[in-house]
Amino acid sequence: MNANYPAPIQRLILLLKSLPGLGPRSAERLMLWLMGRGHTRIPELAEALVHLRNHVTECPACGFFIERGAACLFCQSDKRNQKLLCVVESAADVLRLERSGAFSGIYHVLGGKLSPLDNVTPSDLRIESLARRVHELQSEEVIIALGSDVEGESTAHYLADLLRPLGVRITRLAQGMPAGGGLEQVDELTLHQAMSGRRLLES
Amino acid sequence: MNANYPAPIQRLILLLKSLPGLGPRSAERLMLWLMGRGHTRIPELAEALVHLRNHVTECPACGFFIERGAACLFCQSDKRNQKLLCVVESAADVLRLERSGAFSGIYHVLGGKLSPLDNVTPSDLRIESLARRVHELQSEEVIIALGSDVEGESTAHYLADLLRPLGVRITRLAQGMPAGGGLEQVDELTLHQAMSGRRLLES
Repeated sequence: MNANYPAPIQRLILLLKSLPGLGPRSAERLMLWLMGRGHTRIPELAEALVHLRNHVTECPACGFFIERGAACLFCQSDKRNQKLLCVVESAADVLRLERSGAFSGIYHVLGGKLSPLDNVTPSDLRIESLARRVHELQSEEVIIALGSDVEGESTAHYLADLLRPLGVRITRLAQGMPAGGGLEQVDELTLHQAMSGRRLLES
Repeated sequence: MNANYPAPIQRLILLLKSLPGLGPRSAERLMLWLMGRGHTRIPELAEALVHLRNHVTECPACGFFIERGAACLFCQSDKRNQKLLCVVESAADVLRLERSGAFSGIYHVLGGKLSPLDNVTPSDLRIESLARRVHELQSEEVIIALGSDVEGESTAHYLADLLRPLGVRITRLAQGMPAGGGLEQVDELTLHQAMSGRRLLES
């Protein structure tokens, strides 16, 4: 860090550099833009950041983002099939599936994968409420959309064992996905194919 | 833009996408980070942005950034050679020269280049105050560090003609720079060589 920046610039560049995907050069370019043509956008940007923090929270049902006090865009939408439930690891996976356009049901964000080595047990994930939701919603199908790595596979089987007594149809994404890979590594077409070709999870 | 984001997220993603160097994917990744591990950094980031806007301004002498009410880190520093003045087009060029470590004098940021086709005349640039500064500071040398494109060359000659009556030594960056290129296109070593090999500007 060059000591010849005024302090407020040094502080902002340090913060920008710490954001994911921004290096020292792009942080500096951003700062120069903010000091120049972007000057008028600063209040708007600062306000949008604070608004995000204060007004976005997790949906108590599915775990995806909702605006505080507003309805969930999935759980409380009559345009989504409420009988079709897709289990994903993270909110980012919801965005990926939505971009693929392959799914019109609702989601359940686990918040991670079971991983005994990392001390991630069923009580650390949104698993108890999953069984409750499947029962209350009288789900017709639960699609387990986890990656096909070891933790993803074992989590899928754990969930299938848990849900099978409820008499629900349990499916998983088709093996169009690359072996050992998660949802973050496939393009939208592959994800679309994997969704269309989903198959029953056998014990 | 996917309609399934809550409104505060949609708004922030639109704003982030409009920043230089950020595409839709990196904006989304940044948003996911801000909603997750980066949640606690939001107030700090928003505050740093507003602080930048309210507390950074242009040095009335050299045109580089200063903290409002604070001394200029160049013009008012006894660690810099106040007799050696380097004329650059923009604040970004000051940062580039500082990174190269090739220069220990002070700067004069023109704010652009003369360009009759774009209606940029001497009165649009920080040129009048340049002659005054050179006189008041009793500068020993003025280094004209503009790009070697047409506008850069003609601006350099205009400045040389203006300053020559003051009896100051006028130099320019060595032609180690690529023909037709500006300071933004050379690496730090080339810039260092161009600074060391600077030569007298002849009429």
